[in-house]
Amino acid sequence: MKENSSKAVILLSGGQDSTTCLAWAKKKFDKIFAITFDYGQRHKTELLSAKKIAKLSGTPLKIIKIDVFKHLTKNALTDKFVKIKIQKNKLPTTFVPGRNLIFISIALIYAYQQNIQNIVTGVCQTDFSGYPDCRNEFIKSMEKTFALATEKKFKIHTPLMWLTKSKTVKLMQKLGSLNLLKYTHTCYKGLRPACGTCPACKLRIKGFKEAQIKDPLKYAKH
Amino acid sequence: MKENSSKAVILLSGGQDSTTCLAWAKKKFDKIFAITFDYGQRHKTELLSAKKIAKLSGTPLKIIKIDVFKHLTKNALTDKFVKIKIQKNKLPTTFVPGRNLIFISIALIYAYQQNIQNIVTGVCQTDFSGYPDCRNEFIKSMEKTFALATEKKFKIHTPLMWLTKSKTVKLMQKLGSLNLLKYTHTCYKGLRPACGTCPACKLRIKGFKEAQIKDPLKYAKH
Repeated sequence: MKENSSKAVILLSGGQDSTTCLAWAKKKFDKIFAITFDYGQRHKTELLSAKKIAKLSGTPLKIIKIDVFKHLTKNALTDKFVKIKIQKNKLPTTFVPGRNLIFISIALIYAYQQNIQNIVTGVCQTDFSGYPDCRNEFIKSMEKTFALATEKKFKIHTPLMWLTKSKTVKLMQKLGSLNLLKYTHTCYKGLRPACGTCPACKLRIKGFKEAQIKDPLKYAKH
Repeated sequence: MKENSSKAVILLSGGQDSTTCLAWAKKKFDKIFAITFDYGQRHKTELLSAKKIAKLSGTPLKIIKIDVFKHLTKNALTDKFVKIKIQKNKLPTTFVPGRNLIFISIALIYAYQQNIQNIVTGVCQTDFSGYPDCRNEFIKSMEKTFALATEKKFKIHTPLMWLTKSKTVKLMQKLGSLNLLKYTHTCYKGLRPACGTCPACKLRIKGFKEAQIKDPLKYAKH
């Protein structure tokens, strides 16, 4: 299945989806490089998860520190005074406008420098929670924009784009890497064991339940 | 000529082109906001120019510190050990891949937050020096990508896109703001007075000569 001496850059957040992408990419490409962002997120647990998963899977990890978001926006991911809820415009307060645009752009620049044409990201239109920059149409447009910016061709792989959470869990089982999910971070409250009651925990629990697979992550309440 | 209570965000680098855009935007919109980047450029003169021009024109200026480029790329704009020359791939070593992509993305996020739909940038296809991310096609694709990322419409204005340097100088004269160009920064060597001999100085001098207008900037050699 491996492409000839192929390489890819994986956007690794330390969550369930990007970790599944990492396992997927390890099968598909000869050499993979992970990139993660220290963007002022409320919970450093995310970064610790990314580091642990990169180490366990033998993947070189580049941590990029970028703090523009906290200066530009008010959102519940970087500001503890903002409550997590759905706003009048139907977007959750965890929405950081343009976040994926910036993250994918930086991953593309990193790939460009290393002469790598493949990027892998865990964005998913099925469970996109109202985040417009997780949709397939956005990814395709981004691919085109970056090709125009650099005069090189890039492929943004999105193996989870059309999967439900339960199918993502089944994919990870098929890839034989279910155990890696023990170290992923999901909980919006940043708790370990995970709270089991926030919207992110609930979505994860539902996915495992539907897949009839046991979640290796520890929960306070389940 | 002003649009109804219109607002715009201007990408101001402190150079001749973005300063011309600022003067253009002041006529076109009711309220303008400038944004500039402290991205680890070799010459702090650029930032000083941006501050001076914003102040003189009464424009609020937001300085965004972003240092991802020096960690991701080797280029002559942020690294003094890299010589300014044309590479084998025909791109100058001053090319920072994806730089405009990141800068315009951040300006768009800033505009989004302030509920502003207009961005103004001085990119120019005529004098694009081989930078692919200065072309009209890239800007149009960027506009589309950001609309998809946010589900809002934005207009990226590029008043200089099809102008030669001499026409840009004439535009500034017509706008009655020629004097602002005295404080702009052009020289690749970061010198004040400007060296007058580097490719950037030469291009500027040629533009004023063709326009038959006196450049208010001081040069060491002319």
